Amino acid sequence: MSATPGEILRKKRFGAELNETEIRAFVKGVVDGEFADYQTAALLMAICIHGMTERETLALTLAMAKSGDTLHMEDVPGVKADKHSTGGVGDTTSLILTPLVAACGVKMAKMSGRGLGFTGGTLDKLESIPGMNVNIPIHAFKDIVRKVGCAIVGQSAELAPADKVLYALRDVTETVDCLPLIVSSILSKKLAAGCDVVVLDVKMGSGALMETEEQATKLAQAMVRIGNLSGKHFSALITDMNQPLGNYIGNALEVEEAIDVLSGKIAGDLRDVSLELGAYILLGAKAVETMAEGRRLLLEKLKNGEGLAKLGEMIAAQGGNPKVIGNTSLLPKARYSAEVKAQSDGYVAAIQTADVGMAAKMLGAGRERKEDAIDPSVGIILRKRIGDFVHAGESLFTVKFQDSAKAAGAMTKLRQAVRLEKQPVPQPKLIRAVVE
Amino acid sequence: MSATPGEILRKKRFGAELNETEIRAFVKGVVDGEFADYQTAALLMAICIHGMTERETLALTLAMAKSGDTLHMEDVPGVKADKHSTGGVGDTTSLILTPLVAACGVKMAKMSGRGLGFTGGTLDKLESIPGMNVNIPIHAFKDIVRKVGCAIVGQSAELAPADKVLYALRDVTETVDCLPLIVSSILSKKLAAGCDVVVLDVKMGSGALMETEEQATKLAQAMVRIGNLSGKHFSALITDMNQPLGNYIGNALEVEEAIDVLSGKIAGDLRDVSLELGAYILLGAKAVETMAEGRRLLLEKLKNGEGLAKLGEMIAAQGGNPKVIGNTSLLPKARYSAEVKAQSDGYVAAIQTADVGMAAKMLGAGRERKEDAIDPSVGIILRKRIGDFVHAGESLFTVKFQDSAKAAGAMTKLRQAVRLEKQPVPQPKLIRAVVE
Repeated sequence: MSATPGEILRKKRFGAELNETEIRAFVKGVVDGEFADYQTAALLMAICIHGMTERETLALTLAMAKSGDTLHMEDVPGVKADKHSTGGVGDTTSLILTPLVAACGVKMAKMSGRGLGFTGGTLDKLESIPGMNVNIPIHAFKDIVRKVGCAIVGQSAELAPADKVLYALRDVTETVDCLPLIVSSILSKKLAAGCDVVVLDVKMGSGALMETEEQATKLAQAMVRIGNLSGKHFSALITDMNQPLGNYIGNALEVEEAIDVLSGKIAGDLRDVSLELGAYILLGAKAVETMAEGRRLLLEKLKNGEGLAKLGEMIAAQGGNPKVIGNTSLLPKARYSAEVKAQSDGYVAAIQTADVGMAAKMLGAGRERKEDAIDPSVGIILRKRIGDFVHAGESLFTVKFQDSAKAAGAMTKLRQAVRLEKQPVPQPKLIRAVVE
Repeated sequence: MSATPGEILRKKRFGAELNETEIRAFVKGVVDGEFADYQTAALLMAICIHGMTERETLALTLAMAKSGDTLHMEDVPGVKADKHSTGGVGDTTSLILTPLVAACGVKMAKMSGRGLGFTGGTLDKLESIPGMNVNIPIHAFKDIVRKVGCAIVGQSAELAPADKVLYALRDVTETVDCLPLIVSSILSKKLAAGCDVVVLDVKMGSGALMETEEQATKLAQAMVRIGNLSGKHFSALITDMNQPLGNYIGNALEVEEAIDVLSGKIAGDLRDVSLELGAYILLGAKAVETMAEGRRLLLEKLKNGEGLAKLGEMIAAQGGNPKVIGNTSLLPKARYSAEVKAQSDGYVAAIQTADVGMAAKMLGAGRERKEDAIDPSVGIILRKRIGDFVHAGESLFTVKFQDSAKAAGAMTKLRQAVRLEKQPVPQPKLIRAVVE
């Protein structure tokens, strides 16, 4: 017995719980067109207003995960892990933790979408490496994971196509920020991608989907609950996005910073979050028994250069020039550079992370529309972080650009993004909470 | 300052009151396409769930009334009145009260849509009269109202086009039965049609939009309040639709029954509701000072034949054969006739009016789709009303048909529509409430 769009709409309109059959009929109807766009939009609105029970959210997630292809990774031996971030600025943890975790013996099989962000996604960052190919068929992807231990590729299979339809409608009907819809959107793709262990990085703050720690924790809890109910091992960190995570924002710039972290040249927030996320993967994969052991092992692989070497192997396996790991001048560089300077003395009290991201996008580092091209060379370098003291005339940001008109707009945006105060300001706490 | 679809959707999603500017932007966007179907559908769902304040409903009604052409009836002297029914079965009060009210000196300028009902609308009924034309341009329509005192024509102007778009979407998103949306849909068309006095007949019971008296009263109160706030004179009756109002159901059949009422040949519920609605119009138009005076005047026009003569004048003015008022055999007749008989003795305790309507539609008296043709000759004659005693083998319904396969289905439906009981059953109260 299948349910009609009318029956499903009526039930949810009056706040009743949809059963599994109804939710499956909805997701099937979204993909095969039996649910018209306007019916789907009306149902999404009803879901936003009335919410969804845990049972409904699980059913929705599973139905969406099964709405298209699902990857079967059983023929790749060992535990396969994946990581997902709700999206931030200067957040290139994937490029750091993927080779580090693989160096520890846990396979990382990462299939990414492109999405619309402030800067490009992980795929765009990787494509700034000369020769690097992210459009790799499934069998070759599995081969690389089998041999190298990690790979990061674009979606060649049609994973969770229902999400594509739903997301496009949510985007134009003010139904994006709805917990069960966010949960099912993220998890359905992760479940369809077939990994055993997933660690989620839920960002909070001025540059994140969730502004407050409370909202971020709710989302993380819901995702971990639903994810674990699906039979996989999920955990989540809630991490701070009240300032960019790394200091480099842009595509080639973020690859450079990841290489610098893996080379042991720089430490700081980006490294710390990467190690913490990596340690949760090792723990989830039962490669270590405690978080302390996980952190220690990852740090060892960082210090002995095995992580960096693994990144080189992965780049080579995906057709890129592995020499980049020893020589970041092989990455594309912007022609021009300019500084955004502090107008007065003071402590950096707040950074509007979303505005910094917007400035990077204005330079050409991110996409407005799906079909837009990205300039891999442009971006921003953060010179001061929250809590730092800055003298008038000192640089707050370095802007790397190709087009001076675009740079002018971005610099105005950046100037407004920083607030200085006379009194010392504490650094924000980086890891806010853990949900297991 | 105009509001964007996103801003409007977000506000209503969280239950806030939309202001006039936002509601006007919505209605404009619905007509000019700035609001996509899926955005409109999502907003309709949010409106259904959160409701609308009186201020919002008034703004929506006025914006919809102004969304297309509006008729200016000032050049027709005197008070112009109109009547609207929420729709029932065997409900041909318009054909009776329109000439009666006109005979009392109050002009009736009725512009009807066709709609999808159990039987055809008033226009379809009129078209069963040989030669009768309901497609009449505005200036000719006004001319007839001026000279004869009444006319009933189809919408030649594009009145309230926003309603057409909204109704089509409501129909497929389970958002039809929502008070502010019903109110604005009905009233916007009435306001655009430019009459001064409107009486509403809100039906309740087994064949009505509103099942209970409470729901019907709420709708009537909302419509009268909003209608009066718009500056027109509105009143409403809540009348019983737990059985067909008249005994004749079908297009030519209902014209015949209306003529029989106006000729004084038959009395009963149909006549009583027509007189009551007519009296409220006379009162609203200040043609009489009390309801009692109104009823008396209408009855006088019925008894002295002026009402029937006025119907004849209107038919002639609209190109029809006026002889029909003295000779109903000029109306199209179905070829075949069959009886649905009682299986046992008993008192008629309940009639599923919607099922009787459905049976009439199955015979060909109503439309499934807008483009369907109607057979004016077919229909049903009700032989027993609630409270009547019936002997086994006596006729409950006479079915007038052209196609025996269709008749078989309709008769099965009719057999299931009546419930008999051993104990006497009181007649239902006809006029349930009045809202002024």
